[in-house]
Amino acid sequence: MKYLNKKGVLFMRMIDLIQKKRDGEILSKEEIGFIVTDYTEGRIPDYQMSAFLMAVYFRGMTEDETIHLTMAMANSGEIVDLSGIDGIKVDKHSTGGVGDKTSLALGPMVAACGVPVAKMSGRGLGHTGGTIDKLESFRGFSTEMSPAQFVKNVNEIKISIIGQSKDLAPADKKIYALRDVTATVDQISLIASSIMSKKLAAGADAIVLDVKVGNGAFMEKEDDAIALAREMVEIGNGAGRNTIAIISDMNQPLGRAVGNALEVREAIETLAGEGDKELRELCLTLGSYMLLLARKADTTEEARVKLENSIRDKSALRKLAQFIEAQGGDSSPVFDTARLPSASIIQEIKSEVSGYVCGIKTSEIGLVSLALGGGRETKESVIDLSVGVVLSKKIGDWTESGETIAVMHGNDPDKVSQAARKLLDAYSFSDLPVEKPSLIKWILTKDGIHEISR
Amino acid sequence: MKYLNKKGVLFMRMIDLIQKKRDGEILSKEEIGFIVTDYTEGRIPDYQMSAFLMAVYFRGMTEDETIHLTMAMANSGEIVDLSGIDGIKVDKHSTGGVGDKTSLALGPMVAACGVPVAKMSGRGLGHTGGTIDKLESFRGFSTEMSPAQFVKNVNEIKISIIGQSKDLAPADKKIYALRDVTATVDQISLIASSIMSKKLAAGADAIVLDVKVGNGAFMEKEDDAIALAREMVEIGNGAGRNTIAIISDMNQPLGRAVGNALEVREAIETLAGEGDKELRELCLTLGSYMLLLARKADTTEEARVKLENSIRDKSALRKLAQFIEAQGGDSSPVFDTARLPSASIIQEIKSEVSGYVCGIKTSEIGLVSLALGGGRETKESVIDLSVGVVLSKKIGDWTESGETIAVMHGNDPDKVSQAARKLLDAYSFSDLPVEKPSLIKWILTKDGIHEISR
Repeated sequence: MKYLNKKGVLFMRMIDLIQKKRDGEILSKEEIGFIVTDYTEGRIPDYQMSAFLMAVYFRGMTEDETIHLTMAMANSGEIVDLSGIDGIKVDKHSTGGVGDKTSLALGPMVAACGVPVAKMSGRGLGHTGGTIDKLESFRGFSTEMSPAQFVKNVNEIKISIIGQSKDLAPADKKIYALRDVTATVDQISLIASSIMSKKLAAGADAIVLDVKVGNGAFMEKEDDAIALAREMVEIGNGAGRNTIAIISDMNQPLGRAVGNALEVREAIETLAGEGDKELRELCLTLGSYMLLLARKADTTEEARVKLENSIRDKSALRKLAQFIEAQGGDSSPVFDTARLPSASIIQEIKSEVSGYVCGIKTSEIGLVSLALGGGRETKESVIDLSVGVVLSKKIGDWTESGETIAVMHGNDPDKVSQAARKLLDAYSFSDLPVEKPSLIKWILTKDGIHEISR
Repeated sequence: MKYLNKKGVLFMRMIDLIQKKRDGEILSKEEIGFIVTDYTEGRIPDYQMSAFLMAVYFRGMTEDETIHLTMAMANSGEIVDLSGIDGIKVDKHSTGGVGDKTSLALGPMVAACGVPVAKMSGRGLGHTGGTIDKLESFRGFSTEMSPAQFVKNVNEIKISIIGQSKDLAPADKKIYALRDVTATVDQISLIASSIMSKKLAAGADAIVLDVKVGNGAFMEKEDDAIALAREMVEIGNGAGRNTIAIISDMNQPLGRAVGNALEVREAIETLAGEGDKELRELCLTLGSYMLLLARKADTTEEARVKLENSIRDKSALRKLAQFIEAQGGDSSPVFDTARLPSASIIQEIKSEVSGYVCGIKTSEIGLVSLALGGGRETKESVIDLSVGVVLSKKIGDWTESGETIAVMHGNDPDKVSQAARKLLDAYSFSDLPVEKPSLIKWILTKDGIHEISR
């Protein structure tokens, strides 16, 4: 599908490539590279790209095509050079859910075990802020630093977070923006390549993925989550990065807290050996694979022992404090969570019925946090770090009528009362006992997929 | 899929409609109307429309959806008012092929039988010019006139052709231009609605369609041609216009001549009772249905007798002359075809082998005419009315080596010699006898489809 122009130069035409994909043929590396480069640089118009993306929606992409697309998008901008950092750099990525504060606890844990954590992070839109927003609960904390300082920090204390470069995978940014307005978001290969292009450009040697599944996740069905995880593992390993994925439950919020400072407090509790058991379990599982891929342990069992020790001997908690201080923050809340930002209204929400919690509309809990002011609706929104909700009851818990199911933290009485109603509506109860959902469902490596039973 | 905006006004969002079509749901009349109107008026961007069209490519449209789309496009601009014309106005439309000069002979024939022929026509791109270009072989002929003059001409002499209004179905024009660059042309419902929207806007009471099938037509396969014809008949009748379609062969050029003045000459020969039998048969078949729909005959048999009489008594030939004169043209070539524009080089093309003609690459014959200067490659091209090719041999004919298979008419020796090679390459021969293809294959009415056997 190449032509000679009048000067004898080979060229391709986008309309032929749209038609090729439309007709179910397979595109070459060169053809996909042409599409990504010429679209990003404005030589292919939006209307051709959106027709192409809709054809991909219906026809899908092969594993090879998906890898070519991912690499082309990763190479469309800056490739972060982490070669100045000692050791194997392992990146952790979550596909996102409600109450997911894993990074806040996991980073210090694996750093305490000697794994270099060199993270780029953004702010983004959502129910709560991103990791950087949450960390701003520590007064003075900043991610603005030179790349040289970033590398120095990771080498010296094993953990640093820097704001995401604007030039990371610009092709993905432009393509995603188009998908978002043309109903072409929900396609596994496009989702996988979008995530992985940014991970590859961010320069990690190995990647651990946490793919969430459930009514609070992008993927609601387990089959879809497995398919997405499988594609991302294939892409990562295809690109020469050791990549594994776990699939974890998002049919209720992770842990108890949803909100920025509230999530920081819960992460600190986990590092202190207290707090929610499921959050601790997820950190230990993800952390074990990070240690394994970073060659800091030979088996996941050995890795788990090291991580448990980092909690027991408080080295992980001290690592968090050291990390906050290295980036200009006041670390005192690490040892006294009462010093975190706090809300003026703290209101217990009481159940109106008795029964076992049998379902939580997880996305609605996210919207409770957003409604209280804890997230961004638009890029310009200002986040209130102190607000959010802490769940007292989760799926399977018995609840008496009048018993507290959650505690609301807010600063505006109207917002609190509206959010309280929303929160109550998000819970459903049953007369019969309900099994607690298992948190970690599957683990995928390049060798295959393993089901996890508790 | 409607929302209230802040002022309480209902509105729709294009992204929801793209998704609805993508997911195989059926769009309402109101939703399709919104898409057509808002796209035409620039409120829906090209990139959303092209994603929608690609979703239509994969999901198709129901009969109702197709009718809604057609009506919305027809109503997007001017609707021609032919109410000042007496009688039932019947329009004939061909999906296009090589050597299709039917309109030139058919118009005078049915007009001579009392059917009002009120035709809008364009120039367009192609192997030869459009009907207006061809008619300009009569010196002085013009289609520029007021609508009032047009109506007066039809009432007085039953036939007139006026240049196509720029504002006819502008939505179709804009959508077609987008389909053309996004690989979304080849979709039956979109093709059918594009054709029919213009026909409906042009104001005829009844429509006779000639759907071409074969290697010189847009539809190469009989199944596709039947599907297209069926959709157009459904749309026409759904819109309250009595509509029938015939499916005719385009695996070789229609008749013998390809080129503007050459086709006019062949049409005149048909009106004079001479010339190619298949062209005559097609005119009689299409004309019979036109007379039937215009209620100028009770059966196609009765109609056919009237049309044959119009040839025999020369009333059709005189009608052509009258029509040319009414629009400022010199009608003398009607009675002496030597007075038509003629080329300076007339070259016989001899066969290099002996055998039965078993195939003609029809599109290539079209390109021969184009290469000689008889068509337009771009809107700016100037047409040479005198050039073209006249085939001596058609499928099934025995040909001796050295015998003439076609006569080339040109004005540029280089172009003629290149075109001669192209013409020879377009023919294939067989040692075994080959059956002549049947010209008229199917007839579709709102009551069903009938196969035609010769």
